[in-house]
Amino acid sequence: MNIEQFVAQSEGTWRSMRSGHSLAFQQFEEVLSEVQISRIDASDQEINDLIQSSSLSERSEVAAPFRMTWAAESDWEPDDPNEVSSGSCLIVPIPSDDSQGVLLRSVGYAEAAPAESSYSFLSDGTFLLTTQYEQSIAEERIWFVSEHVRCRSSVLRTSAGSGVLQTSFASEVRRLSS
Amino acid sequence: MNIEQFVAQSEGTWRSMRSGHSLAFQQFEEVLSEVQISRIDASDQEINDLIQSSSLSERSEVAAPFRMTWAAESDWEPDDPNEVSSGSCLIVPIPSDDSQGVLLRSVGYAEAAPAESSYSFLSDGTFLLTTQYEQSIAEERIWFVSEHVRCRSSVLRTSAGSGVLQTSFASEVRRLSS
Repeated sequence: MNIEQFVAQSEGTWRSMRSGHSLAFQQFEEVLSEVQISRIDASDQEINDLIQSSSLSERSEVAAPFRMTWAAESDWEPDDPNEVSSGSCLIVPIPSDDSQGVLLRSVGYAEAAPAESSYSFLSDGTFLLTTQYEQSIAEERIWFVSEHVRCRSSVLRTSAGSGVLQTSFASEVRRLSS
Repeated sequence: MNIEQFVAQSEGTWRSMRSGHSLAFQQFEEVLSEVQISRIDASDQEINDLIQSSSLSERSEVAAPFRMTWAAESDWEPDDPNEVSSGSCLIVPIPSDDSQGVLLRSVGYAEAAPAESSYSFLSDGTFLLTTQYEQSIAEERIWFVSEHVRCRSSVLRTSAGSGVLQTSFASEVRRLSS
């Protein structure tokens, strides 16, 4: 599996069931949402802007940039100020070789600022993503269980120590266009 | 990672937060439970009984057999007849080499009958378990995110086709003995 193949498999509209686990408080969170993933043109000006504001060289080789948009259909905790119910994010992979590289995001997952992640693939094609934020480290993994079903898990830990703050798991089913 | 190391890391008492996703109905389920994993003696008669009732040869080489016990602390769907709130299960790994093998269980995960699974480890040490039941195939993965936190996901699909029925995800935190 390389990043081009992975993005190609991910393109489309997904219905996502997501569960969040807050480990310290043993609290569950449930969110239904729709996630849309669509390729964008590599010459898009936004991509250049994102690379220029990153730690990478301007001549970095981009592969399969895409946009991810999400909108919550329901949210059992509407009062949670951390819960973003919809958003959009530009994602720009910059492979160093076939199995790993760097991934730039215009909006981070754990914190709203732009984020720079490292990615790699496990032996079975599972996609691993590690993002160092100012206050935390997020580790995500995404794997396909069939052509139209994928799973996504995340672990958020404090950047100071190894304390695990929360985890989440999403089951995503492709919405076949009618 | 081999099975001996994996079982050694898993030994102990875990507080588990588990979310189940029913994909067709988009229903969530939440269960808090305590899971206990303890090594048992390889000469235990129960182990021989389990091997004899399996498809394996009586002279199979057993590694790190253990018992898993679980008890739900709470269950948001007490009327669900499929929800087993407590139980215990003997688990007997029989490695074919360092990175894979067969695992016998006295009680299955998706169906209550004894189960024979194949297991392997991914490049980062993630444990993969595939069990063929009469009606379904269960695929589980377990990975440690720190010494005292592990994640466990499962996917249940129909054995006839590739239809994914449900998924689940558990975050497990080791209960340090007081």
